[in-house]
Amino acid sequence: MDLKNELKKRTDIFNIELKHYLEGGYPKILYDAARHLPLAGGKRLRPAISILSCESVSGNIENVMPLAISTELIHNFTLVHDDIMDKSKLRRNTPTVHNQYGEPTAILAGDLLFAKSFEVIHNFTGHSSIFKKINYNIVESIREVCEGQQLDMEFEKRNNVTEEEYLEMIQKKTSALFMLAAEGGSIAGGGTDNQNICLRNYGKYLGLAFQIRDDYLDMSSDVNTLGKDIGNDIRNGKKTLIAVHSINNASGNNKNLIDKIFGNNNASEEEINKVYNLFNEIGSLEYAKNTAYKFCDEAKKSINILKDTDAKKILSDLAEYSINREK
Amino acid sequence: MDLKNELKKRTDIFNIELKHYLEGGYPKILYDAARHLPLAGGKRLRPAISILSCESVSGNIENVMPLAISTELIHNFTLVHDDIMDKSKLRRNTPTVHNQYGEPTAILAGDLLFAKSFEVIHNFTGHSSIFKKINYNIVESIREVCEGQQLDMEFEKRNNVTEEEYLEMIQKKTSALFMLAAEGGSIAGGGTDNQNICLRNYGKYLGLAFQIRDDYLDMSSDVNTLGKDIGNDIRNGKKTLIAVHSINNASGNNKNLIDKIFGNNNASEEEINKVYNLFNEIGSLEYAKNTAYKFCDEAKKSINILKDTDAKKILSDLAEYSINREK
Repeated sequence: MDLKNELKKRTDIFNIELKHYLEGGYPKILYDAARHLPLAGGKRLRPAISILSCESVSGNIENVMPLAISTELIHNFTLVHDDIMDKSKLRRNTPTVHNQYGEPTAILAGDLLFAKSFEVIHNFTGHSSIFKKINYNIVESIREVCEGQQLDMEFEKRNNVTEEEYLEMIQKKTSALFMLAAEGGSIAGGGTDNQNICLRNYGKYLGLAFQIRDDYLDMSSDVNTLGKDIGNDIRNGKKTLIAVHSINNASGNNKNLIDKIFGNNNASEEEINKVYNLFNEIGSLEYAKNTAYKFCDEAKKSINILKDTDAKKILSDLAEYSINREK
Repeated sequence: MDLKNELKKRTDIFNIELKHYLEGGYPKILYDAARHLPLAGGKRLRPAISILSCESVSGNIENVMPLAISTELIHNFTLVHDDIMDKSKLRRNTPTVHNQYGEPTAILAGDLLFAKSFEVIHNFTGHSSIFKKINYNIVESIREVCEGQQLDMEFEKRNNVTEEEYLEMIQKKTSALFMLAAEGGSIAGGGTDNQNICLRNYGKYLGLAFQIRDDYLDMSSDVNTLGKDIGNDIRNGKKTLIAVHSINNASGNNKNLIDKIFGNNNASEEEINKVYNLFNEIGSLEYAKNTAYKFCDEAKKSINILKDTDAKKILSDLAEYSINREK
């Protein structure tokens, strides 16, 4: 079974539904701004997880489509607003929404995507009590994403972030949506309470593994692989697991060097390289890689009790992919 | 019956509930930023309308409180984001959220209030099908508010806006939330379909009257009354009913003068006064006043069929207030 192929089968269906859902709208500029990012591509991981979760509990894929769209719209709305906060110029190799449409329309476009992530689940045809449950999960996941993003920003200004705090932050910032996608897919597919919880846990650990791998890739790749500048994370003092581990394990001169350079916006290329090498020497890149592996295992273990299906196998392979991917 | 007193009775209860609902939260800075504006006061018109609508259909006030809070949070989230778009420094005589907490946290605080406007209705204890209906109304009203705000911005750059377009814009920007408050109050209070529709119409016309009065006050008062700079609307080319009426009814030299000054950011005080006097000469201030009166009448007529209660009388007085208020 080829993972890429299996994911594509599902995301192809999803992409048609998403495009259709985002058609039209007045005023046109606002709607163009709103669909700019979601239709510019992306991995569609959250929708894929929703669909696979639904399949893994023998649910009907049609029932999960509103939730799948909702998760992707939430993801995109947060990116539109994050890009404004970070003053980012490019995403998915295309200008960011505020770069193309101006900040006021970009803020509104994010808000509109936010509203539409709640609107689309009204296409869910199941019982209103299940609708309510899914709606609640959506609300809570968005709340957590906001909290996680705020923590991420606050951590940049702190040099005493613990690993526990870091993990709480990425669980909110990244896992919350994966949990929504996985558990919600199960709920929409008619899963039992037990299945819902298993898939929720799968989403949690997958999200942790995914985010740590993301941080790792940012720290170990070049601009051609990821489309991001290396060193930005170091200059901004971004608290990745790698940075947190190094800060908490460095001593003496190494600690002084990190304190001086890490979070220094004016750090030179040479200084960036010094810190990067230090992260390596201290073993923090290795540590992050191993931690991602551990969470990948936890993700796979979480769905052990589900009956063996193609969907279960694909979810398991997806966990593997999340820690081995190069972009 | 004293309107102010009757409103206060209801908003006092509401304010306690709101304050309680917004307590706590982590990370604290994000939650402080989120409660900054809603707890800084405000007229609480939307919650008052929700509560009165509920009462007018003999509903229990406890059932409407989640919706009342939701409408106020939506209103506040849009203000937080609007203030960023407009780069406003002050609101309710206090620094705007982005002014006090920085733009990134302000964007997130708005998003959090947005999420909480959906979260709070989960405290509604009625049937999940009613929950779903209210939820849908919330989604649609937020969508309309976004569309209305975008139109408002686009209209600033256009000098051929028709009265019809203007009315559509303020119906989205302002009435949509009043409609949600009024209809939602009825739905939460167990109103009949007919009562729901009557109150929805009341909200629509009240919103139109309220917004036109707002535009009128901006154009005819000084900084001490409203806390806003006169002339800003003229310099920004803001399409109020007054401006739209003047542009569409001026001719010859008057038209040239408006075309030259209206929307000119560098217009002098003298030029602003010229345009203002022209608006008066053409009769546009009078026209706006009369149009607000007409919508006030429509609002009152909309609830004619409701049985006579204190709440109905207060809603009617509130419509009168909306067009006679001085701030």
